[in-house]
This record gives sequence, structure tokens and C-alpha cells, in this order.
Amino acid sequence: MYRTHNCGELRKSDINSKVKLSGWVQRIRNKGFLIWIDLRDRYGITQLFINSENVSDDVIKTTKLLGREFVISIDGKVIEREAYNNKIATGEIEISVDSIEILNKSEIPPFTIEDESDGGDELRMKYRYLDLRRNPIKNNLIFRNDLSFEIRKYLKDNGFIDIETPYLIKSTPEGARDFVVPSRINLGEFYALPQSPQTFKQLLMISGFDKYFQIVKCFRDEDLRADRQPEFTQIDCEMSFVNQDDVISTFEGLIKYLFKNCLNINLKDFKKISYGEAIEKYGTDKPDTRFEMDFFNLSEKAKGTGFKIFDESEAIYGFNVKSGAELSRKEIDSYVDWVKRPQIGALGLIWIKHNMDGSIKSSIDKFFDADQLKNLTNSSPGDISFIISGNKKKTLTQLGALRIEVAERFGLRNNKEFEAIWVTDFPLFEWDEESKSYHSMHHPFTSPVDGVINKDPSKTFANAYDLVINGNEIGGGSIRIHNKELQQKVFSILGFSEKEADDQFGFLLNAFKYGAPPHGGIAFGLDRLVAVMNNDETIRDYIAFPKNNSGRDVMIDSPSKIDNQQLDDLNIKLN
Amino acid sequence: MYRTHNCGELRKSDINSKVKLSGWVQRIRNKGFLIWIDLRDRYGITQLFINSENVSDDVIKTTKLLGREFVISIDGKVIEREAYNNKIATGEIEISVDSIEILNKSEIPPFTIEDESDGGDELRMKYRYLDLRRNPIKNNLIFRNDLSFEIRKYLKDNGFIDIETPYLIKSTPEGARDFVVPSRINLGEFYALPQSPQTFKQLLMISGFDKYFQIVKCFRDEDLRADRQPEFTQIDCEMSFVNQDDVISTFEGLIKYLFKNCLNINLKDFKKISYGEAIEKYGTDKPDTRFEMDFFNLSEKAKGTGFKIFDESEAIYGFNVKSGAELSRKEIDSYVDWVKRPQIGALGLIWIKHNMDGSIKSSIDKFFDADQLKNLTNSSPGDISFIISGNKKKTLTQLGALRIEVAERFGLRNNKEFEAIWVTDFPLFEWDEESKSYHSMHHPFTSPVDGVINKDPSKTFANAYDLVINGNEIGGGSIRIHNKELQQKVFSILGFSEKEADDQFGFLLNAFKYGAPPHGGIAFGLDRLVAVMNNDETIRDYIAFPKNNSGRDVMIDSPSKIDNQQLDDLNIKLN
Repeated sequence: MYRTHNCGELRKSDINSKVKLSGWVQRIRNKGFLIWIDLRDRYGITQLFINSENVSDDVIKTTKLLGREFVISIDGKVIEREAYNNKIATGEIEISVDSIEILNKSEIPPFTIEDESDGGDELRMKYRYLDLRRNPIKNNLIFRNDLSFEIRKYLKDNGFIDIETPYLIKSTPEGARDFVVPSRINLGEFYALPQSPQTFKQLLMISGFDKYFQIVKCFRDEDLRADRQPEFTQIDCEMSFVNQDDVISTFEGLIKYLFKNCLNINLKDFKKISYGEAIEKYGTDKPDTRFEMDFFNLSEKAKGTGFKIFDESEAIYGFNVKSGAELSRKEIDSYVDWVKRPQIGALGLIWIKHNMDGSIKSSIDKFFDADQLKNLTNSSPGDISFIISGNKKKTLTQLGALRIEVAERFGLRNNKEFEAIWVTDFPLFEWDEESKSYHSMHHPFTSPVDGVINKDPSKTFANAYDLVINGNEIGGGSIRIHNKELQQKVFSILGFSEKEADDQFGFLLNAFKYGAPPHGGIAFGLDRLVAVMNNDETIRDYIAFPKNNSGRDVMIDSPSKIDNQQLDDLNIKLN
Repeated sequence: MYRTHNCGELRKSDINSKVKLSGWVQRIRNKGFLIWIDLRDRYGITQLFINSENVSDDVIKTTKLLGREFVISIDGKVIEREAYNNKIATGEIEISVDSIEILNKSEIPPFTIEDESDGGDELRMKYRYLDLRRNPIKNNLIFRNDLSFEIRKYLKDNGFIDIETPYLIKSTPEGARDFVVPSRINLGEFYALPQSPQTFKQLLMISGFDKYFQIVKCFRDEDLRADRQPEFTQIDCEMSFVNQDDVISTFEGLIKYLFKNCLNINLKDFKKISYGEAIEKYGTDKPDTRFEMDFFNLSEKAKGTGFKIFDESEAIYGFNVKSGAELSRKEIDSYVDWVKRPQIGALGLIWIKHNMDGSIKSSIDKFFDADQLKNLTNSSPGDISFIISGNKKKTLTQLGALRIEVAERFGLRNNKEFEAIWVTDFPLFEWDEESKSYHSMHHPFTSPVDGVINKDPSKTFANAYDLVINGNEIGGGSIRIHNKELQQKVFSILGFSEKEADDQFGFLLNAFKYGAPPHGGIAFGLDRLVAVMNNDETIRDYIAFPKNNSGRDVMIDSPSKIDNQQLDDLNIKLN
């Protein structure tokens, strides 16, 4: 036996008990003949106390060998501390050590195992197993574990069945790029790893499992942006005999349940906002709604006054910032510079300060008088208005990014506050200028509203919904098509020939012939949900063994070359 | 809204309620102007009743269009049945239909959706989504869902943390063949899909997560035997600061908990039997111990009597079958034929009948007299003894197979009875004649007993344990090596050069340098566990979308060819 207790559980009530503990040496303080050791495990830290005058030579000899991160096991007696440490749960006691055994040595770790480590990103990724010893990362994974369990509990209590779908499936050229897996038994053929279990969960609905869920890994071979992973985890759900409101109410329930049970936070009812309104008001389909700064649209109002920049712009949008009139010229300039950065790409930023005394100062006061400017922005004394003009889509996106930046700088993105909304009524199709073809905004299985496609496909709305929390897209779903003819029509609008549709999705089209029920569902990004619930915007520290931005696991050094024999067995050659 | 109730929940107490149901048409009985429809969903069947004289023409018209597996939605009133059907939970009521809507049509399904289907294996695999509608398969998946939840609950209650490990890892030529995944971002390099998260869970122990579990897909690119799948699900567990008894008691607790909570069966304490004893007594390391028929060893005793077959055999083993003396000559011959089949490969089977009157009849009574034979077998009146001789390993295996066959035919493999045992003390290494090298019997991370390797590696025992239920291997595990030098020594016995060991497992060897705790664990085959708990020996019907014996998913037709563009992007060519 290695321990009677863990390092986080002994209390004053245990005083005088004989105990055995095992763990890692966090710190050693050696004051001559008195030695204190902080012993650490997953559950906490317990202080060990060694009085050289009262212990055997063996204990002293062993103690002298110890270093940081050694694994030891000790026997001893629980005693009261002289001075309590109320920063840790075991702070009222310590262990008077009788015997000590080194279970394993440790070299000096390449960075400190403390809440704030001195290790750089690459180093900590390479020694991820040591980074995981640090409390912040450890606690992230424990939180994730708790959250996953609560997700399962809520869904089970609501009648959902957890069903595993296959990982070795079929490649479809549609959408993002698949990871493929060469088959050795079926030479020249490939499996693909699922980007999501979408078609399988639809087949399960056709099978009659009217409530399905799965917490499942998904894979996308995309060029990795800062916060994407080639493999990620989805909470994947589907229901039959439901409409949009049924799905939304079930999963609003889930999210509220999770915030209540994991964070003790009561979320307000989620507002619904249409895609069109979100773009028009916030310049994004995943707005952070914890603060105002809704856009105003000057595209009509501000034109025809002879101010060339406005007159020649397709669109003119702006928003007011409370207390913004206090910004210094330097601060204002830094916003102007910020929107001009290539990542944002605005040509400029117009600002109008509405001072407390009612006076106006603006970057365009040569072209408009004070009343005109007040009238345009409808601002109150103390506000500053920011305005961007140009191509409509770009203008809205740029202004949306600025809105978030302003909120950051003004401290409006309150860490303690969570606001969840549903975004609905997305377009079903997006026109892609480059390929001159329609793409699905969600995926090709999304039902149009009322099951009908407009003569002009671009004017068709999707029966789809996204969940957004604090400006992060956490999940998305839709009512699906369950009718073969409608599904074929969508494939044809997307440019599939009948043969292509059949080759790739024949099994689904076929399944629709045998009594497919109306159904719909949703999928949440678990990595993202965990991060957002912890007020974090990067998912990497909520994943035990993440990959870096080149899709590499630098710890195990993967991907890597494989044997020629393996290539031969698979009948493939490197170019 | 599609329904107020499901098809399994209405009772007499609901009589006179107005309800709305949706589901599939299971059966239609048309008795002139009275029509009954069985409406089915996941939860059960509810009978619909249509009296043509009381409903609108619309209802009659729609009803005439219906066929098997149509999806419909109906409104109506709950009424009492004239004659109760006590085979179904809703058998006391039926719904008097007011209106009916066809939600989706169905072609005539390719096989009947009944408990006993008329569809062949291939057909049911191709239309798996229809096969899943059948009660037996549906109930298997629901059982699996329940079991998974209880597994998680037990492990959570015991302090285990569910941590996801990566699916895109590194290929290692050791052991079974990996599925590999070409990387597009790192051209010429490959990920591998995990055969198990073995090294990752060990790293998690080094990270200090002293209790880890995961229900996780694993992958093996092996030539598929009848009941293997290229992807399968493991309950993967690991603990730190434990010895063998700690692991065994934790997971014996899990298995008992599952049998109690999912089947209401109280398992007896699991016996422990060594690998050596299992082979010697049952001819297999996964014995079915629900019945006796332990082997006796005549290798010494029966030699030197001049009977050439015995004298020239390395080994002679047999077992007694209670009531076996009643077997007819024809029945005995069928056992003789059975062991001679190429799958078993015995050269013959010696039998000795010990009749109730004390007389002896035997296939070798020309060579031995009655007393000699009684003395050899130590049988009782009424027994038959079966004996096989030859090469020791083959003899034991053949006799072990015969023991199971006899038990089958004598009805000793009692469906209602479950007996779980631990098999321990496996050899650490197996000598492979073909490659003239040692292999790990479990895997190279298994610790030898007491952490010491015998000078003769083949005489080293592993600190490993398998869980066997009713003759099926359900799980296996071991205490792991946590010391770098010992791990290197094992790699070297297995024929790894230092460089090879470092290339493949350098990250683990490295991790051992920074305070690796003693640790051990176990992994269970979930597919197999579910099947065995349902008295089934094939796992396929406990998996939603299994692959066939060529690793193909015949429903989605995968694996399949991929685009040349995809191959080019990956920089690979088909030979």
C-alpha cells in the first residue's frame, strides 16, 4: 500500500493519526536540523516536518537526496502546525515523518511546476506531462471532466441515448478537407475520419432512436488558425419529431443546467436574434451582447451632402461609445491605427466627439456642422461615435471588430457575466464568387424554412440556429431535410450531378425512402464551451495533449516518417 | 408539435385524453369499415382505431394510402380496448383517431422489421438503419448506453477523471499493425490511429492524475477474424500509487456494480488463477469456470506401458464428463470427428466409458485393462473420460476446445449464470520461433513481478492480470514499468536498439526521468463486455454501424477511392 490518505484531505481532526502519504516533492525548506517538505498530489499539498533530532539516520540520509519533483512515500503522525497556513486546506496540520522512501527520482524539470511557470510555450508543449502538473492546467481538465459528466447526466435524464458512430467512414469532397486512412485489406481505397457524425446521426433518427447524443472526436484537415485543432470534440445531438423550438428549448435547458451545476451561475433566458439583424447591429453573426454599442446605419442619411467619402460608399455604419468623449487625441488615433491594420483592413475611421458641454469635435467637422453631426449619430453628451464606410460587407465586419476592441479597452467584456443568445434565420446558401457556385452556409442537410427553396436560392432562409455566448460560437444546428426529393434539389443547387450525389450520399438518399421522420439537432464544440465557461478564448489549455499550429504533437514528435514496409503494405508511394 | 406522448406510455388512466402521437406504421388490419393500425416508436407500440363511420373522408382517404413503415402523426382520443392485449404495456387502451397526417412515405422495406427478421446478414448490414429499428438490436444499443453511463458513474464516484487523449498519434512498428493517416501540412509524414491510449495514460500518471479513465475508440489494422472489428471501444483506466491488489479490487468492484445495476445479478467474489494453472487445468488462459471437467495429467502415469501412442507423446491429458457414459457410440464418434476437424487438428480422441455397473468400455481397451483405465482417469461410474496426447501445447489447446464443446452439448454453459475470474502471473515474454526473438505477452510497458527480470527472460513473470467472464477475455492490465532503466532493459530484450527505442518511445523514457510514480491499470473491451452480459458471443449486434469481415462498411460503401487531387495534396501515389 502506498498511501492511507491523499495530500489534500488531512485536517485538525486527524491529529495524532498514523498516516502514509505519497506524492511529489514541491519544495524543501531546510533550516539546519529542522526540515519542511511540501508534498503534492492531485488533491493538494501536505507539509511534512522532519526534526533531525527525532528521526533515524536513514530518514536524514534519504531527505538529503531529495530534490524537486522526486516521488516519495512517507509514514508519520499528523500533528498541529505551529503557525497555520490558511491558503491551503491542510494548513492547520503537518506530518511528523517517521520514515521516508524514494519511489522515483527526478531530474531538475525544464521549467518550474508552479501556477505561474517560467517555461515558454514550446517547452511546455514538449514536456506537456510536466505542464499538466501545474494547477491551472490540471484544474482545467478536471473542470472538463465534471462538465462532460453533467452533459451526459442532463441528456440521459432527458431520454437521450449515447450511441457510438464509426470513425472509419467515407471521404466526401464537400466542405472542409478530410483526413484519410489508406486501407490495407481493400488496396487503393481509403477511409476518412469524420468531420462530424452528421449523416450517421441522421440515419439513427431514421432508425427510430428519437434522441441521440455522443461526445465525440471530429477531424478537419484545415490550415490551422491560432486556435484550431485538427482533432476536436463535439457534443453531437439529434432529435426526431421536433421543430426548431423543441430543439432550442432542450438545449437552452442543457446550457443553463451546465452553468448552474458547474459554475453556480443562473443564465437569463436566451434572446433570439436573426442572422440579418446580428450582422446589421453588430457586424458579426456571433455578437457579444453583454454590452450595447449597436450600430446605426447612415448609408442613406449621410449621403448626398457633398462629402465624397460618404457619397461614394456603398455603406456607412457607426456606433456610439458611452464616455468615449473622454478619449484623448492619442487614444483616438490608436483606434484609427487599429482599424487600419491589415488584419482589419479599414481605410480609415471617422470619429465624432460629443462633449459634455454639448460641443462637437470630429474628424469630419470640415464637412458637417455640429447639428448635422448630432443628428447623424443621435449621440448623447459624453459619447464618441465611430463610423466606417465603404463596401457593405467589409464595413460591417470592420466595425464589428472595432466594437469588440472598444469593449475590451473600456472593460465592458465582464469576466463574471455570461450572456447566451440564439442566432437564427441564416441564408441557406452563400454565393461564392470565385467558384461561381452556391455553398451551404451550414451543411447540405439543413432544411430551408418551411421546407421550401425560393426560386432565387440566395433568398432562401435556413431552419438553422447557432448558440453564441459572449461573442463565441459554441454550437450550431438545424432542422434537417428528411425528404429525398428536397435533398436532391439542394445537392443540385450545390452543383452535384445526380451521379455525384448518389456516389457520396446514396446511402442517405436511399434511407429517406423508408420512412424518415422529421428531425433536427445541434452540435456543440466541447473544447470551446469549456474555455468560454472559464473566460478563456484559447482552447489549447483545456485539451490534455493538443497539437501546435502546424498540427504537430511536439511531445511525441508526430506526425513522423513510417517504414517503407508499411507503405508497401498499403500499396502507396510518396511522390 | 409532433406529439404529446410517445407510443409506449399511454395507460388506462389516460382514457378520454386528447393525444397526438407520431411514429411508424408497424401493421394495418382492415376489417371492412373498422381499421386498426399498430403505431411504433422507440418506446413501444400503441394501437390506433379508425371507425370509418365516425371519421372524416380525409382520414379514410389518408388511411388507404398507408403502408408498412410510413411515418405518420395522428390526433385522437384514448379509449379502452374491447379486448386487452397483455403482451404490450399499452395493451389496455387504443386511440380513436380524429385526424391523420403522413409525415413521410416508405417503400416496402427489403426485409421485415420484426424481432425475427427474414433478412440475411448482408442485406441487413446494407440497410443497417432499418435493422436498427428491430427490437433486439435497438435494445442492445440501449443496454450499451445504460452500461456506459453506469461505468462512468462508478468511476466518477471512485475519483476517476475522464480525460480525452489524442487520436492522431505516432506509428510504432511494435505489436499489431497501425492505421496511418498521411499529413498534408507535414508532407511525407504520417499520424497513426491509436491501438490504445497506453502511453498517454501513463503520461497522465506522470502528470499526477492518479485516477484516469476514458471510454475510447481504438484501432487495429489486423486481418479480421469472425468477431473482430478494425475499430473497437475500450474502457481504459489507469491508477497511480497502486499495486496489483488495489487495481483488482477497484475493477472487481466496477464489474460487480455493473452486473448489479444493469442486470440485477450479484456476482460472487472473483477467483484468482495463475496463467500456468489455467493452461494446465483448462487448456486456455480464458477458461469458462462455470462447470468442472478439470484436466488430469497422464503424461507421466500413462507412459511406459507399451501403448505406442502414449509412449511417444510429449503430453497426455484428459478430463471426465459426468453422465458421459450415456453417450451412444454415434455421439462419441461425433466428438472424435469434431477434434479431428482442421480447426482443432487433433490426430484422435481416446475415450473411456465408466458404466454405472462399473464396467469399462474404451477405444483403448485392447491396450489397458479395466482397472488400469479406472486408475488412470479416476472416473466415477457414469463418467466418460476423453484423452488427447501429443505435443504438449497443442494437446492442451485441443482438449480445452473439446471441454467447451462438451459443455455446450451437455448444456453446462448456463445462460443465467455468470462467473468472473482473474488470471494472473503470465509470462512477461513469449519466445517466437519464427523470428527467433522475444515478444511481450501483454505489451512492453508491463512490469515484471517485483520489478525484476530473470536472467532467463522466459522465466520472468508479468505483474499482469486478465479478467475472464464465462470463458471470454473481457479485460486485461498490469502494473507498469515506471523506471527508465528497467524499461530500456525490456526494450533491449525485445530486440530494440537504443536508437529505435528512443525514436519510438523517447518521450516516455524521457518522462520517466521527471518523477514517474508507480502505476498500473486495465482496459476492458466494451463491445465484448456488452455482448457477454447479454449472453452473446458476437459483438457485431452491439455496435450501431459495424464493419464486415473485410473491414468494409457496406452501407456507406467504405473504404472507397478518393480524388487524385486529394492524393496530390497528400503527396502520395498509389502503386
